[in-house]
Amino acid sequence: MTGKLYGIGVGPGDPELLTVKAKGMLEGAAVIAYPVNRRGEESTAMEIVRGAVDVSGKRVIELIFSMDPDDNVRRRCRSDAVKELAGILDEGQDIAMVTLGDVGVYSTYMYVDEEIKGLGYETEVVPGIPSFCSGAAKARIPLVIGDEGLAVVSMAKNNEASLESALSGFDNVVVMKAWNSMGSLLESIERHGMGKKNATVISNIGMEGEYIGPLDPEREYGYFTTVIVKKGNGDGE
Amino acid sequence: MTGKLYGIGVGPGDPELLTVKAKGMLEGAAVIAYPVNRRGEESTAMEIVRGAVDVSGKRVIELIFSMDPDDNVRRRCRSDAVKELAGILDEGQDIAMVTLGDVGVYSTYMYVDEEIKGLGYETEVVPGIPSFCSGAAKARIPLVIGDEGLAVVSMAKNNEASLESALSGFDNVVVMKAWNSMGSLLESIERHGMGKKNATVISNIGMEGEYIGPLDPEREYGYFTTVIVKKGNGDGE
Repeated sequence: MTGKLYGIGVGPGDPELLTVKAKGMLEGAAVIAYPVNRRGEESTAMEIVRGAVDVSGKRVIELIFSMDPDDNVRRRCRSDAVKELAGILDEGQDIAMVTLGDVGVYSTYMYVDEEIKGLGYETEVVPGIPSFCSGAAKARIPLVIGDEGLAVVSMAKNNEASLESALSGFDNVVVMKAWNSMGSLLESIERHGMGKKNATVISNIGMEGEYIGPLDPEREYGYFTTVIVKKGNGDGE
Repeated sequence: MTGKLYGIGVGPGDPELLTVKAKGMLEGAAVIAYPVNRRGEESTAMEIVRGAVDVSGKRVIELIFSMDPDDNVRRRCRSDAVKELAGILDEGQDIAMVTLGDVGVYSTYMYVDEEIKGLGYETEVVPGIPSFCSGAAKARIPLVIGDEGLAVVSMAKNNEASLESALSGFDNVVVMKAWNSMGSLLESIERHGMGKKNATVISNIGMEGEYIGPLDPEREYGYFTTVIVKKGNGDGE
């Protein structure tokens, strides 16, 4: 019997925002794997797990997924990670691979899922609370209501085209990984006839540098920064 | 001491997909309120609560939020509901008001939150798993990866303009409340150079008529139907 791979979304940060299902699976898992960009890097997903579950006695595995600009380096990393997972599944062990937020939203896990399934192993995905849902809850603004639409884009690769489509066509725009793009983001917002008060920044919740408030381009923001832009001026409709 | 209102997202259907926080709050709540469109209507959110928590001994309150096309009728309903909630808060009781999915995504709660806060009461929002996150997990497709964007629109009001913006500008489109708009949705998809296999339907999960698969316009779909349209032909990239 080979093992099964579980992709588990651990939510945005608060261990209490794990689902009952995810918590139970992590408690029962003998092997927990977590992705990092560099060996030895801290993993926020894994910190959340440690806050919710006793991991002593479990096998905890760091998987390296490089963000190197060279496609070949990234692909080699992914292939090594898949081989390591397959080796453990061949031992008959199940693996819980954890993802910050939800598994379907900008996660590495979905690439792994496809490759592992392609090798003939069984997999299952457990959804998690996306950071933008908890951010909107914290800021006490709706993400989307009535007949409005919602767009979600990431600034990780300075994706101006997606941001333009979003700001042109949507009443509500979630901008993820915005921490070092605040100046250009504000310019885009102003180009669409809005201003700072249309943008609510939700940054590093529960961590150093926590901030919830309007977009201040003079301020520095931590890595975990999401901006919610609302055409309806952010007064909550 | 007046009570506090909690808006609690109970996730998409499986009681195990409640967060640990939401479950704990519902267990501790003396009063649970749930919204319906018509008196006596079944509430999926409340069914989820009953699957997760013993509600015997709790005060369970049905709040009517009419979907009447007349604005005045809808506003009067909302105002009655807010009055009822305020009366209970004045008794010093906390209230947990539940929402299917996430509180920020097309929910009635956020209107109530604003009005109750406006009356000077304290409120708090607890996020939930949106149906589109669990739908993508079930269908085993990513919602959004890499430098792609994601758009979320609702067909509840046959919102063609949002759908057009979404299909024009985004690699991934979530279409909520699509159950009785499948024909026109497929036409829109085809007008954008895609076809049935680009659309994954996730319908009535865990209920009668459960379906996960490509869009078949000949089929009938239940009320809880979400469609995920991917330009990258839905093969999971």
